[in-house]
Amino acid sequence: MADATTEPPLLGHEVLAAVLQVREGSLQVLLWQRAREPHVHRWSLPGGRLRLDEDVEHSIRRQLKEKVDVRQLAHVEQLAVFSAPGRVPGPRLVASAFVGLVPSDNDPEVPPDTRWHPVDALPTTAFDHESIVLRARHRLRSKLSYTNIGFALAPPTFTMSELREIYSAALGYSVSSTNLQRVLSRRGLLEPTGETTKPGRSGGRPAALFRFTVRGMQVTDEFAVLRPPAAKTR
Amino acid sequence: MADATTEPPLLGHEVLAAVLQVREGSLQVLLWQRAREPHVHRWSLPGGRLRLDEDVEHSIRRQLKEKVDVRQLAHVEQLAVFSAPGRVPGPRLVASAFVGLVPSDNDPEVPPDTRWHPVDALPTTAFDHESIVLRARHRLRSKLSYTNIGFALAPPTFTMSELREIYSAALGYSVSSTNLQRVLSRRGLLEPTGETTKPGRSGGRPAALFRFTVRGMQVTDEFAVLRPPAAKTR
Repeated sequence: MADATTEPPLLGHEVLAAVLQVREGSLQVLLWQRAREPHVHRWSLPGGRLRLDEDVEHSIRRQLKEKVDVRQLAHVEQLAVFSAPGRVPGPRLVASAFVGLVPSDNDPEVPPDTRWHPVDALPTTAFDHESIVLRARHRLRSKLSYTNIGFALAPPTFTMSELREIYSAALGYSVSSTNLQRVLSRRGLLEPTGETTKPGRSGGRPAALFRFTVRGMQVTDEFAVLRPPAAKTR
Repeated sequence: MADATTEPPLLGHEVLAAVLQVREGSLQVLLWQRAREPHVHRWSLPGGRLRLDEDVEHSIRRQLKEKVDVRQLAHVEQLAVFSAPGRVPGPRLVASAFVGLVPSDNDPEVPPDTRWHPVDALPTTAFDHESIVLRARHRLRSKLSYTNIGFALAPPTFTMSELREIYSAALGYSVSSTNLQRVLSRRGLLEPTGETTKPGRSGGRPAALFRFTVRGMQVTDEFAVLRPPAAKTR
């Protein structure tokens, strides 16, 4: 820091987002196909250069607007900085990567160069974008266990069978509705809406509808047992 | 990204670390006092400019060496990017901030301009460094609940009374040894070494010594109950 004002600027900064959604039973990521070199025709994460008058959070929301209606993003958070010296050809470029989550009941309009791809079967990606996508999936999977982040992948209300499909797709293995309901209810994350599906929606008997109690990120497994008595009653 | 090679570089990139340790019963952070403008005499996080030939992880370890023996860092992780346009005077500078943790039985030698400060009673800090410190504390507190990160604050072996003091200082409220032992044991994080303290160490009867089962970050509360049977037996 001492030399902050004396050294010349040596590099650029870009923001990139791995926008994830559960679609057709699998976790998918939004990628656009590059029309120009470098890495022409390869698939890229949406994003671009940080402007002088914005921070990285504003920048990623501005740039995502070009690819997707950002009101459909239920959650956006910083993922990590990707800064290997040779990560892109040409002048040094450091990337601030984000994760964005779209609830499964949305189907955002996307430009012609942009498409959803299953994270399990990525096409050839540009630069280090595949490792960013895989890191984003890892973050999502970890947070499904210790936060309420599932709210950002789920519709406002859902049956346990629908939620089970979303969690199974995101986690990469099949979970049972019964266990899922037990875990999420015990943590106070889930509540019944009091309504049931209309006949036909799930193909069988009407099923109970649920919703997340909070739509906004919370760590759900804070050391509750260790908290002081005052905090417990909040 | 499309314009990566055409726009001029507009900014610099620095790395900064909030190095935290429980000392004398409180969570403290390592700061050095600036000898020059801007913000002369204010207290700063260690760090400095990213070099062309290094990524941010290598850079922070290189720069921390000037302030502290980095072998004493039991854990280092990316915290967040701080990128508000006016966060430092002069040319734009984006910061990649890290958290570093030092076990409580170490007392690193530090240079004359550098000192530990309780996070609860910070001196006047430079730039946005106070908000970085507070964000680091928040990250540590969250991770104490859903990971085994306590290993990086604790000595290799400890009594429950010693560990209780470390957790209480880091969390900011008093926890009981009994609850702490129950929670950490239930999660398989803690094991008795089979030894006890020598008379005099804790001032009373010999106390049982414990250690963390794993020294290396792990999320401890992954959705164990939801995992497929094969994964459970690993």
